[in-house]
Amino acid sequence: MDAIPFQYRFRVALHDIDAAGVLFFAHLFRHAHDAYESWLRALGHPLAGMLREQRIALPLVHAEADYHEPLRHGDEIEVRLEPVDVRASRFAVRYRFINGTGTQVASARTVHCCIDPDSGAARTLPDALAVAIASCRVNESATDPVARR
Amino acid sequence: MDAIPFQYRFRVALHDIDAAGVLFFAHLFRHAHDAYESWLRALGHPLAGMLREQRIALPLVHAEADYHEPLRHGDEIEVRLEPVDVRASRFAVRYRFINGTGTQVASARTVHCCIDPDSGAARTLPDALAVAIASCRVNESATDPVARR
Amino acid sequence: MDAIPFQYRFRVALHDIDAAGVLFFAHLFRHAHDAYESWLRALGHPLAGMLREQRIALPLVHAEADYHEPLRHGDEIEVRLEPVDVRASRFAVRYRFINGTGTQVASARTVHCCIDPDSGAARTLPDALAVAIASCRVNESATDPVARR
Amino acid sequence: MDAIPFQYRFRVALHDIDAAGVLFFAHLFRHAHDAYESWLRALGHPLAGMLREQRIALPLVHAEADYHEPLRHGDEIEVRLEPVDVRASRFAVRYRFINGTGTQVASARTVHCCIDPDSGAARTLPDALAVAIASCRVNESATDPVARR
Repeated sequence: MDAIPFQYRFRVALHDIDAAGVLFFAHLFRHAHDAYESWLRALGHPLAGMLREQRIALPLVHAEADYHEPLRHGDEIEVRLEPVDVRASRFAVRYRFINGTGTQVASARTVHCCIDPDSGAARTLPDALAVAIASCRVNESATDPVARR
Repeated sequence: MDAIPFQYRFRVALHDIDAAGVLFFAHLFRHAHDAYESWLRALGHPLAGMLREQRIALPLVHAEADYHEPLRHGDEIEVRLEPVDVRASRFAVRYRFINGTGTQVASARTVHCCIDPDSGAARTLPDALAVAIASCRVNESATDPVARR
Repeated sequence: MDAIPFQYRFRVALHDIDAAGVLFFAHLFRHAHDAYESWLRALGHPLAGMLREQRIALPLVHAEADYHEPLRHGDEIEVRLEPVDVRASRFAVRYRFINGTGTQVASARTVHCCIDPDSGAARTLPDALAVAIASCRVNESATDPVARR
Repeated sequence: MDAIPFQYRFRVALHDIDAAGVLFFAHLFRHAHDAYESWLRALGHPLAGMLREQRIALPLVHAEADYHEPLRHGDEIEVRLEPVDVRASRFAVRYRFINGTGTQVASARTVHCCIDPDSGAARTLPDALAVAIASCRVNESATDPVARR
């Protein structure tokens, strides 16, 4: 049985817009990360707690986004988030940005690796976190044929 | 003998502009803080070093700004920075933002107190830092009659 | 009969924090403005619509904030917003930032003037907007003795 | 004869750092775009002028970055920028981020297409801009075997 994507909403703010009149591209990543923090909290693994405990760190090693349609001031955007490539010591997260008319205006992807914060060496995800993330996996073959590239 | 204000320059970037077509007001504070960091570095007391050494912290307890003219994309702005109210365990910094035609388009003020980072208690500024800051004081009575309010 | 302050909530995000481990002071203004946009939308006068229609503009001419306690990653903050000095062609907005234990960790104030976007000249607030803003006024004498300074 | 990459420098600021103690990943894109604006200005085609003239727009359709080493507060970073895939109506820009010890700590890539701002339809780059961009092309085969992917 497949999970459904985690949903997070935001509204494009005055300060999200740049001199070209559309959302400044880098701010899409800020919103993606807000969705990611919201998702980890919903999974019972809030990032603030992880950073305080210092047992693991999850540095972001790659980020990318595609911009299909401009995001404009006042647009209400739904982010659909799902883990797409979960391995022993790293995982990727895919974000689709959907506007009020149901159009996918952008997509993004972040890749996170799990390390020991003291040594910086890669380590496996703690079991509870790995299970929580895996529980969110949507059937990739049906929704994202390029997820494993 | 009076010092002259510390000078820092920046150019208003695409992402500084908001949906109203002018610099988003909160970004003025980001540029003010960049000027402040540049000034402390020029004084021989870079903030990154202070934070690493953890002997003192200089939390910002007040900030304010007045916006006289809009700052627009591509404008080259000169920030004139000067300490204006230096006391034993706190100091204020004034920033004037001057555009390419010599017009003061905005001004700002930040107030910083000196604390012990462990206890959070107020403490006096270290002598070397106090002397460095005091060396930058411009004659206030001539330039800023409200500096002491 | 007095209104109660408009309420807006946000959670302090990973990217709100700076190298000193607390919310970067300028980001408080970003959150204040998000609350302000949310309030105008609730009043039926969304900022995005105003900017599109170009009948009036509400440039921000002053901003200030006081920082009482550090805001930390993961903190859930309630913003209590109220107009405090409503005049014919300008108004001020006060923001109080309350953390999860009920402590006021910061406060802010922004001042907006109403202008004609074409000429840049001051003009009176449109009636509907003036009435909507006035309906939100809390008894100032009881809550903010310095509101009129 | 090959060009050499355009160089742009910045210092990692207090506000670039997030709660994990390193540069927040989305801010790398802000710095990349500052380098991009600086490069266009050096080419004689400042972005602010393009937006004002409204003959063309250059919306960003893709962005990606790889993070090799953490960027820390106070680090002085050199950005080496070069166009890597220049076509009739689009081009890509590659950014390499080099720290003070000569280590490449991150890289990024943005893809821009040229459109008519009124219709939104793709159009060819104006000749003068195309020539200016092409003049910056470094020999790709020697430096970036994946540039054409």
